[in-house]
Amino acid sequence: MSRNKNSAILLISCPDQKGLNAAIAEFIFRNNGNILHADEHQDEDLGLFLMRVEWDLADFAIPMTDFAQHFAPIAKKFGMEWSLSNSSHRPNVALFVSKYDHCLADLLYRHRSGELACEIPLVISNHLDVQALADFYRIPLQVVPVTKENKSEAEKRELELLAPLKIDLIVLARYMQVLSPDFIRKYPHRIINIHHSFLPAFVGGKPHHQAYQRGVKLIGATSHYVTEVLDDGPIIEQDVVRISHRDTLEDLIQKGRDLEKVVLSRAVRWHIESRILLYGNKTVIFD
Amino acid sequence: MSRNKNSAILLISCPDQKGLNAAIAEFIFRNNGNILHADEHQDEDLGLFLMRVEWDLADFAIPMTDFAQHFAPIAKKFGMEWSLSNSSHRPNVALFVSKYDHCLADLLYRHRSGELACEIPLVISNHLDVQALADFYRIPLQVVPVTKENKSEAEKRELELLAPLKIDLIVLARYMQVLSPDFIRKYPHRIINIHHSFLPAFVGGKPHHQAYQRGVKLIGATSHYVTEVLDDGPIIEQDVVRISHRDTLEDLIQKGRDLEKVVLSRAVRWHIESRILLYGNKTVIFD
Amino acid sequence: MSRNKNSAILLISCPDQKGLNAAIAEFIFRNNGNILHADEHQDEDLGLFLMRVEWDLADFAIPMTDFAQHFAPIAKKFGMEWSLSNSSHRPNVALFVSKYDHCLADLLYRHRSGELACEIPLVISNHLDVQALADFYRIPLQVVPVTKENKSEAEKRELELLAPLKIDLIVLARYMQVLSPDFIRKYPHRIINIHHSFLPAFVGGKPHHQAYQRGVKLIGATSHYVTEVLDDGPIIEQDVVRISHRDTLEDLIQKGRDLEKVVLSRAVRWHIESRILLYGNKTVIFD
Amino acid sequence: MSRNKNSAILLISCPDQKGLNAAIAEFIFRNNGNILHADEHQDEDLGLFLMRVEWDLADFAIPMTDFAQHFAPIAKKFGMEWSLSNSSHRPNVALFVSKYDHCLADLLYRHRSGELACEIPLVISNHLDVQALADFYRIPLQVVPVTKENKSEAEKRELELLAPLKIDLIVLARYMQVLSPDFIRKYPHRIINIHHSFLPAFVGGKPHHQAYQRGVKLIGATSHYVTEVLDDGPIIEQDVVRISHRDTLEDLIQKGRDLEKVVLSRAVRWHIESRILLYGNKTVIFD
Repeated sequence: MSRNKNSAILLISCPDQKGLNAAIAEFIFRNNGNILHADEHQDEDLGLFLMRVEWDLADFAIPMTDFAQHFAPIAKKFGMEWSLSNSSHRPNVALFVSKYDHCLADLLYRHRSGELACEIPLVISNHLDVQALADFYRIPLQVVPVTKENKSEAEKRELELLAPLKIDLIVLARYMQVLSPDFIRKYPHRIINIHHSFLPAFVGGKPHHQAYQRGVKLIGATSHYVTEVLDDGPIIEQDVVRISHRDTLEDLIQKGRDLEKVVLSRAVRWHIESRILLYGNKTVIFD
Repeated sequence: MSRNKNSAILLISCPDQKGLNAAIAEFIFRNNGNILHADEHQDEDLGLFLMRVEWDLADFAIPMTDFAQHFAPIAKKFGMEWSLSNSSHRPNVALFVSKYDHCLADLLYRHRSGELACEIPLVISNHLDVQALADFYRIPLQVVPVTKENKSEAEKRELELLAPLKIDLIVLARYMQVLSPDFIRKYPHRIINIHHSFLPAFVGGKPHHQAYQRGVKLIGATSHYVTEVLDDGPIIEQDVVRISHRDTLEDLIQKGRDLEKVVLSRAVRWHIESRILLYGNKTVIFD
Repeated sequence: MSRNKNSAILLISCPDQKGLNAAIAEFIFRNNGNILHADEHQDEDLGLFLMRVEWDLADFAIPMTDFAQHFAPIAKKFGMEWSLSNSSHRPNVALFVSKYDHCLADLLYRHRSGELACEIPLVISNHLDVQALADFYRIPLQVVPVTKENKSEAEKRELELLAPLKIDLIVLARYMQVLSPDFIRKYPHRIINIHHSFLPAFVGGKPHHQAYQRGVKLIGATSHYVTEVLDDGPIIEQDVVRISHRDTLEDLIQKGRDLEKVVLSRAVRWHIESRILLYGNKTVIFD
Repeated sequence: MSRNKNSAILLISCPDQKGLNAAIAEFIFRNNGNILHADEHQDEDLGLFLMRVEWDLADFAIPMTDFAQHFAPIAKKFGMEWSLSNSSHRPNVALFVSKYDHCLADLLYRHRSGELACEIPLVISNHLDVQALADFYRIPLQVVPVTKENKSEAEKRELELLAPLKIDLIVLARYMQVLSPDFIRKYPHRIINIHHSFLPAFVGGKPHHQAYQRGVKLIGATSHYVTEVLDDGPIIEQDVVRISHRDTLEDLIQKGRDLEKVVLSRAVRWHIESRILLYGNKTVIFD
């Protein structure tokens, strides 16, 4: 992957038909754009055309703000759903966390080291434990305690904190509260969760305990978009690690942490770099 | 792993207590056995002691046939469940297969090349398709067609074929019939199945279709002992392979085949080499 | 990957410049081809544009035999190196093998099961051992013994056997003779070898022995195009498997076999499906 | 692995002979120790017996300080090399780092979260960059700049810093200076390095650049004990990650970082938990 300082990225899905590639490539060329990457996929069962194309904006004739207007005829002709992003735009990401802070620490380190091209204007936690970590990375922390009784108020408070920051993506970095459908609908396909199992195995609470009981030989982690059905949203990334009878439940949890960090951080990076195209309950990762 | 031509292998499980290692090692030493391998595991939650010990029989004072008698006092004192095997004994393995013959072909090849130290006196199939393969490897094939109507008779016929051959292990090498509880009880923990998913994800029929629908990023295979609950027996081995949106359902099936061969053959080899200790619904693999 | 029964596949490399995608897509569209897959890569260091594009031939206006003529203006304008293949064409593949027949058995099984869309008109071996296997799969076997003294004559004989069969690809399926530069020049980038190590570690003979001595924790296998420098050709695919101190040299060899089969068969399939684009001493795999 | 609060761990290597297991197990039992783990390995080529045994000290009759005296007769009889450690003892570990701080940050996080049962009384760096990180985790940092000219003085200074802290283990967490033989001899088999390649491939400087040039399909990382020959010491752990043509050199470096963290931290943990037995130029990992 190149990380061009100033490129445009277009994600497209539409019914497949002849001439799609030509129309898109010709449009970019006519407006003096140099295509840096183009990757295309067809879902043959659904007859869908799915594409990610990235081009250099150096000599591109159309300002980003006018793109929609110029691209409209093509989009209309082919019935496209599309979204445009600019590689120089750094999206605003909010991190939610509870007590386990390994994913938070990992994401903040990657952010500081330049691996994640985003802003992180806010960390929200239902516990005080991560204050020192947030301070070290100089990210504002807001603590919003959540109980059964105050859950709806707590979510209201969280939404109030998010709204003025124009948050593009919420990352649940081992946030142990289940978000309400109302909350999720506010950020459709813009909430990424890390579940500490190989979904769909071990849905719900305490997946490592479930895995230990079942005697599996590998444990997994899954990053996915959050939908209203628990642990059922489109999967972005998964990975596994081998365990043996020598591993106690505590070992599983420790090995799991290394997985969760990597699997969550990949999902966040791909989202930020506009590499994920959602369709149905699946994702295409244009890597 | 060494593959000593003439060694004894003892698998032991019992409540943990002091002196177990000493008693076992002293018994073998007193009778002039040289320990080749000794591996021990404790399940701390259950307070269980689990051990595999292998020793050279070259100068061992006790004939295998008299072992039980001599070992009885120790076994009784510690409340041991134990089983003894002889590395020079080649267990009798029957292979069951339906139409997909990749696991069968793989096991027969490994058997011929010396990787599996067993006899294979019989292949049973509910289809005629594998005749040429069985002939090539000179293994007798018995075709036992199975329908909904004749299922119980078919199983009766299978049991009749197995009985005179003193079968130690049945391997379901992509055998697409569900065995009845009656059949399974005849070979308790001596039937190994390969399921083409990462259990407990995608239990039951067409797991690759299920995986494709769910949009997972890895597909798996699981070898396990067959119990009366479908796809729920003790897991012996699992592995996974990465897939992407570029993979069609057909690609999943093809990638799955490579997994299934490896995952099943490992389970068969470990069983034959007395490396698997069952307890509860789990396995310890002494590799 | 779809496996369209009748599609054209074009592999292109040329200096990167604006308008390449548009020119190619427009050419296909103008001639009424429906693009099934298009994947493009740029080597930014070298300023190279590398592409694989596949389109349905159902309504395509140009016969394959006339393609070069029609495509010439575009190819010339952009300075393209290109090659065209037809998915319905089954290339002729010759397999070379010595005594270890696991890769041979694996490739023949995959061929018979439809996984490899090629013809295999010939197996050449310097030993008699694989006769039964070749017979079973009904592939003609030619035995060409090789000694230090007769090496150049033996290669001459092999070339004579290959010539009339219009061999597109030679696969060294654990063929233990080093081919001469003269031989290799006859089949430039059309000879694939499997080396039983993770190259460039353990070049040359007995890599498993070298790995065992060095005490590595993973062993590998590498499939690569054969060039005149031993084990130095462009790498197509690699994979590894974990080993431990419990593994003897014999175990390494056995675990290695499973790797070699998978790593070689992937390379062969990708070559057959025109998924490999060579540039410099590297490969791009359009999967 | 259990992490018993107060257990003894004995690592033994000696020529193999009958009665070894019995003598050791009987010694522990006679002194009222309960064996928690016992794992044994034989190198058949070298005729070596290698063992790790761990037992509960709760009722053990011999104080650790007197162990050598009581165990001497057995050790002498069998010609044992042995070392004893106590799980409640937290070894002193010094971390060396240059500019790349991902391994340092990872180790410090794991230490704080309880995953590494050691003390870290000192970080030494040849750069100032890691001051904030060391401060955050409240670990004293000593900056010792190293140039070609002052190298021997710098090492002298480092040794002076280490000596009063009774350092058990030095971890080179991406420390980019080659230590002199004199330095290494002061800490024989007590310096662990992380090399960012799959050794023995890509020895020496800039291994990611070498890997990128060679066109490998996997990149690796290797943790090993430092010996006087560069990148040639006994390997403790290795792992790899898949790359593709889409990955730039920068991507390799980034993917490599995730590997290095995991591969180094495992080695450090195993050393701390006395799970590594060195013999020849190899390691046995008793996991």
